[in-house]
Amino acid sequence: MGYQEFTIEGRNAVIEAFRAGKPIDKLYVLDGCQDGPIMTIKREAKKNNVLLKFVTKERLDQMSETGKHQGVIAVAAAYEYAEVDDMLGAAKEKGEAPFLFLLDNIEDPHNLGAIIRTANLAGAHGVIIPKNRAAGLTATVARTSAGALNYTPVAKVTNLAKTIEDLKKEGLWFVCADMDGTTMYDLNLKGPIGLVIGNEGEGVGRLVKESCDMVASIPMHGNIDSLNASVAAGVLAYEIVRQRLRG
Amino acid sequence: MGYQEFTIEGRNAVIEAFRAGKPIDKLYVLDGCQDGPIMTIKREAKKNNVLLKFVTKERLDQMSETGKHQGVIAVAAAYEYAEVDDMLGAAKEKGEAPFLFLLDNIEDPHNLGAIIRTANLAGAHGVIIPKNRAAGLTATVARTSAGALNYTPVAKVTNLAKTIEDLKKEGLWFVCADMDGTTMYDLNLKGPIGLVIGNEGEGVGRLVKESCDMVASIPMHGNIDSLNASVAAGVLAYEIVRQRLRG
Repeated sequence: MGYQEFTIEGRNAVIEAFRAGKPIDKLYVLDGCQDGPIMTIKREAKKNNVLLKFVTKERLDQMSETGKHQGVIAVAAAYEYAEVDDMLGAAKEKGEAPFLFLLDNIEDPHNLGAIIRTANLAGAHGVIIPKNRAAGLTATVARTSAGALNYTPVAKVTNLAKTIEDLKKEGLWFVCADMDGTTMYDLNLKGPIGLVIGNEGEGVGRLVKESCDMVASIPMHGNIDSLNASVAAGVLAYEIVRQRLRG
Repeated sequence: MGYQEFTIEGRNAVIEAFRAGKPIDKLYVLDGCQDGPIMTIKREAKKNNVLLKFVTKERLDQMSETGKHQGVIAVAAAYEYAEVDDMLGAAKEKGEAPFLFLLDNIEDPHNLGAIIRTANLAGAHGVIIPKNRAAGLTATVARTSAGALNYTPVAKVTNLAKTIEDLKKEGLWFVCADMDGTTMYDLNLKGPIGLVIGNEGEGVGRLVKESCDMVASIPMHGNIDSLNASVAAGVLAYEIVRQRLRG
C-alpha cells in the first residue's frame, strides 16, 4: 500500500491516534477552542512535535470529509493494511484461539467503522475485507471506529471465499449470518472462528456462504427484515464472546 | 405509513402549527428577533418543550424551501408519538411481559434509527425518548429505522427518571448499561423490563442510572472505551432476548 495523506477527524479519533502512536503530520485546530479534549490534543501535539495550525471554522468545514470534525482535523499517513498471517500470529502470541471478522462487501463507511470498533472490543484479532466494491479505510471509517482502527488490524484480500478455504486449513471454523440459519444460541461457536458478515442489502454472497461451516440466525420477533449490519455483527460477535467466556 | 419530515415556514404558519398540536421537533429563530409574533412563537416553544435554536439569517435562507421564512422555521415530524400506556397495553394484549427501550439522550439520528430497528426485531413493545436535547423522529431516523418506525411506537417524555419510577409501579425492572456494571450474562434480565441506553458520549445520566435496578456491563476485551451506542443497544437487547427464549 502506497503512502497517502489521510485525515483523522473528531476529538476522540485524534486523541486515540496520538495514543496509538500514529504518524501525524499536521494538526488543524479551530482557533480559540479551549475545552478539555482540545487541550489534551494540543498537549499531545507538542509532545510529538506535530505542526499545529489554528484555523477558522470555514477552513475546517472545507477540509472535512465527514462534516463532523468537532474543531480538529489531523493529517496523518494512511493506514497500513495488515496481512492475515499477522492476525493468526497475534492470536498465537496471546495464547488465544483466533477470532476474525470477515466482511462480505460492507459498503457504508459508518458500518465498517462501527464493526471495526466492535471487533476490537469483542477481542477479535483482525478484520478481513475484500479488495473490490467494499468501503475502504477512509476518514469516516477511522472516525466511526472511535480509534479501534489504530489497534485492530484490517487486511484486504482478493477473494473472500479463497481466504476462507485457506484459513480452514489453519483450523478455523466459519459462521455466517443469514435468516435461514440455525438460531445462534444453538450453535457451538467456541474455538478458532471466523465470523462472516454480509452486505447491507444482499447479505452474504452465495459462494462465501457455501464456504461457511455454519449459518447462524439472529432471532427476529418484529415486522421488518433485518438488523442494521453493524448491529447484527455486534449481536453475533457477542454470542461468540459469551460462549468463549462460558467455555 | 408515509413518514416524512417537513418544515413549516413563516410566523403565522408556525403559530398555527403549535395551536393545532403538530409534533414539532425543532424551531429555528432569527437571532435577535424580538417582535410580538416571534415572542408568541418562543412562548409556545417553551410550553411544548420544543428545542429552540437561534440562528443567522444566512442559515435560515439556506434552510428555507419557500424563501419566505420571516425569521422562523419549524421542523416537524409527520409522525405521531405514542403514549407509554399504549405500549403496556400492546404487551398485555400479546400476553407478553413488557419490554421497553428507554434512550437517555441519543443524539445521532442514525443511532436512533438503528435502535428503533433493533427494538422492533428484538420484540420490544416501544421506545421511550426524552423531550429535550435528544434526536427527534426526523427523516434520517425514519430512513435508518428501515421501516421499523411504522411498527414500533415511540413516546416522548419530559423526565425519563420519573417515567422509570412510574413504570416500576407497573412491575417493570430497569437495567442500564455502564462499564462499572455486572457482566450482563450474570444478571437476571427476564420478566417485564426496561432497557436504558445512554448518550453516545456521556453514557447514562446520574439520575436515570440511580433509578435503575441493575447496571449491566458488556465484556470489553479491546483497547478502546466503548461500543457504538446502537451496537451496544443491540448486544444488550439480544442478551434479554436470549434469556427470554431460554426461559
